[in-house]
Amino acid sequence: MIKKVLIANRGEIAVRVIRACREMDIATVAVYSEADKDALHVKLADEAVCIGPATSRDSYLNIQNILSACILTEADAIHPGFGFLSENSRFAKMCEECNIKFIGPNYKAIDLMGNKARAREIMREAGVPIVPGYEGAIRDEEHALEIAKEIGFPVMVKAASGGGGKGIKIVYKEEDLASSYNTAKAESKANFGDDTMYIEKYIEKPKHIEIQILGDDYGNVVHLGERDCSVQRKNQKVIEEAPSTVLSEETRQIMGEIAKKAAKAVNYNSVGTIEFLYDINGNFYFMEMNTRIQVEHPITEMVTGIDLVKEQINVASGMAISFAQEDISIKGHSIECRINAEDPNENFRPCPGLIEEVNFPGGLGVRVDTAIYGGYKIPQFYDSMIGKLIVYGRNRDEAIRRMKRALAEFIVVGVVTNVDLHFSILNHEDFVNGSYNTLFLTDKLVNK
Amino acid sequence: MIKKVLIANRGEIAVRVIRACREMDIATVAVYSEADKDALHVKLADEAVCIGPATSRDSYLNIQNILSACILTEADAIHPGFGFLSENSRFAKMCEECNIKFIGPNYKAIDLMGNKARAREIMREAGVPIVPGYEGAIRDEEHALEIAKEIGFPVMVKAASGGGGKGIKIVYKEEDLASSYNTAKAESKANFGDDTMYIEKYIEKPKHIEIQILGDDYGNVVHLGERDCSVQRKNQKVIEEAPSTVLSEETRQIMGEIAKKAAKAVNYNSVGTIEFLYDINGNFYFMEMNTRIQVEHPITEMVTGIDLVKEQINVASGMAISFAQEDISIKGHSIECRINAEDPNENFRPCPGLIEEVNFPGGLGVRVDTAIYGGYKIPQFYDSMIGKLIVYGRNRDEAIRRMKRALAEFIVVGVVTNVDLHFSILNHEDFVNGSYNTLFLTDKLVNK
Repeated sequence: MIKKVLIANRGEIAVRVIRACREMDIATVAVYSEADKDALHVKLADEAVCIGPATSRDSYLNIQNILSACILTEADAIHPGFGFLSENSRFAKMCEECNIKFIGPNYKAIDLMGNKARAREIMREAGVPIVPGYEGAIRDEEHALEIAKEIGFPVMVKAASGGGGKGIKIVYKEEDLASSYNTAKAESKANFGDDTMYIEKYIEKPKHIEIQILGDDYGNVVHLGERDCSVQRKNQKVIEEAPSTVLSEETRQIMGEIAKKAAKAVNYNSVGTIEFLYDINGNFYFMEMNTRIQVEHPITEMVTGIDLVKEQINVASGMAISFAQEDISIKGHSIECRINAEDPNENFRPCPGLIEEVNFPGGLGVRVDTAIYGGYKIPQFYDSMIGKLIVYGRNRDEAIRRMKRALAEFIVVGVVTNVDLHFSILNHEDFVNGSYNTLFLTDKLVNK
Repeated sequence: MIKKVLIANRGEIAVRVIRACREMDIATVAVYSEADKDALHVKLADEAVCIGPATSRDSYLNIQNILSACILTEADAIHPGFGFLSENSRFAKMCEECNIKFIGPNYKAIDLMGNKARAREIMREAGVPIVPGYEGAIRDEEHALEIAKEIGFPVMVKAASGGGGKGIKIVYKEEDLASSYNTAKAESKANFGDDTMYIEKYIEKPKHIEIQILGDDYGNVVHLGERDCSVQRKNQKVIEEAPSTVLSEETRQIMGEIAKKAAKAVNYNSVGTIEFLYDINGNFYFMEMNTRIQVEHPITEMVTGIDLVKEQINVASGMAISFAQEDISIKGHSIECRINAEDPNENFRPCPGLIEEVNFPGGLGVRVDTAIYGGYKIPQFYDSMIGKLIVYGRNRDEAIRRMKRALAEFIVVGVVTNVDLHFSILNHEDFVNGSYNTLFLTDKLVNK
């Protein structure tokens, strides 16, 4: 069994892991950068070790220092949280080599799923629906046209190394293909030094629906229903909810079983998420797998009653999953709003700084996962998410009402937050009727 | 339907009611004493009216000022919370006469249950088990002995007007009866100006088990299971849990049905609680009925998923209960710790004052109901309870572990609290094994 866990992360997820450990009688070691010496995760852990300067590269991404801290404090396991080293298969492998339990999946699964082309291939072989596309690099303009016609427009031309909107073009008509292809290729070359190009079917107005799964060392895999994470801006989720408004119980079970197939295809043995695009006709396609605990895991905990971080620690310590698929039922409705220190009126400019005062919401059905406190200074070096506000209601209507009253109680004095944007979203008819898709936030609220 | 509610209370219960109203789109009016102008309930309500000086008699008990505030703000209902005017039948009647909806039971039910001798009589007639005793005042020493022998020792000799331990004696042996009777009688005369005496069976080492009930205007009554409130000091509850460790499902249903009978006997049409003494042999006896929402109502909400304050408002506005007895199931386990600004090491001396800093626990399964915030000054005029920490776990073991980790995160700088006492209770074997009774806290921890 695991006796002491080092948490190789910061912020609310570090606090989340400390909480689970404390409830399991597991000792905790926080690591922190020089900018984080007053952080809440440092105060709450049993021990804390400074692992380097403020910049992530020198601290939270510094494998050597983190492993040294682990050996120094005699921690027998590392929880990587999300972001940072959580999907670094080399780190997971090095932990194993140092005889430190990595609280996550086996490094091979991380590796396989980290390579998008490879992941797509594995999923195709496992019978998981993938977005129709050409399995390989596009040779040239003519080849691109041939493939696009085969798949049918609209198509997405995308660079293998693309990201942040660069190297990606959506093409609706045959006559636009050549120029889009060449632009994307040039962008990719200029930005990423690589111009390998793919073409796939462009899924219009999709929902982002993801399935939470949990696997163990003995080949058991269960799914815990879906999350609808379609309220996004630049691929960053802003609000998530469970269950989704558009899935029937039948579709939920079908998607769940497919997600389990996907997990089994890589011998998955931890918590993980299979992300799908869900189109307006109810078709769904594998997008990617996240081989870690996710930011939005709490909403699944609220509707299933299962503590995902405890389960993750249990399976990492070699235990089998303690329940069966048929023991899991989805009850009620949960919503999460990510509270960011950023200014939506100034192009979402991050707003670090001193939190002079803070009041957290409370009461029935309200959960606050955060690492801020009154007097805390948000450092400028990391993500702008300062907390997650999660509500539970007996049904979706109650959850929305509860979220609005809780948001009204979430008062931060000293820094600008996106709380008002959350109100706008929750009051928008597309959110209220549940029809919103991944374009909703940008098209209807941010750039309207 | 109710459109605007005036909350005739302060502190966390006022905040609790505001939260329910906000989720129901009902406007809220806070009232406050001069000492409470910076209180959280004043900040959170839509409107606020000052109703008098700091002392409760002049503000929160000032019926005229409260009714005036209600008329002035055109509120159509009053929620009395608990304490203060919540069980004042005259106030409930005056609300009705002013055409203001009193969010509580009809005043006749309050009246009947407020008179302990009358309540006992009604319960006896309704077939609710009551503590064996003589139905009337004791005439003299000889009469006392005759009755005591009939009931069987041990007996409790108690003054009709007794309270706070005065005018009450427990008598184990025949030969001690006369002197105890005379002492209690003299104490009562001296302290309360009345020496009417009763005798009843003394229940040794009982648990305090209470049943939550909910009734409406149409004669429907449901019960929502029990709460074990046996961790008490001087009749003040300190920790409550639901469900109780000692009740079988069968006993739960029997007690629940009896509680419903008790409620129906007074045409009860709101949330209320039937309190029982539960002896070591599994016998239970009616103690009293509380005709209001209780401090410890959240633990019932956690294990049933039902928002009791919303239900209370709904039935007050004339709606029927929206669910049936068979829709209610008890799931998981919940514990509440009352956080008081008091010093257990100095005979529980209240410790009002400035809260310099505060950190509330959060995360999965943790609920904080409080009205304090960093920079808030606790006034000296009211109850010392500054918040309630409520946890939910899939089972009792998880709930206890979660409560301990949450208590460790509940940090208040500036005033002394009873958080350490809660740790002592939660770690005590009598609490862990669930065998504790109403004498536990005083005998084993406070006066040991």
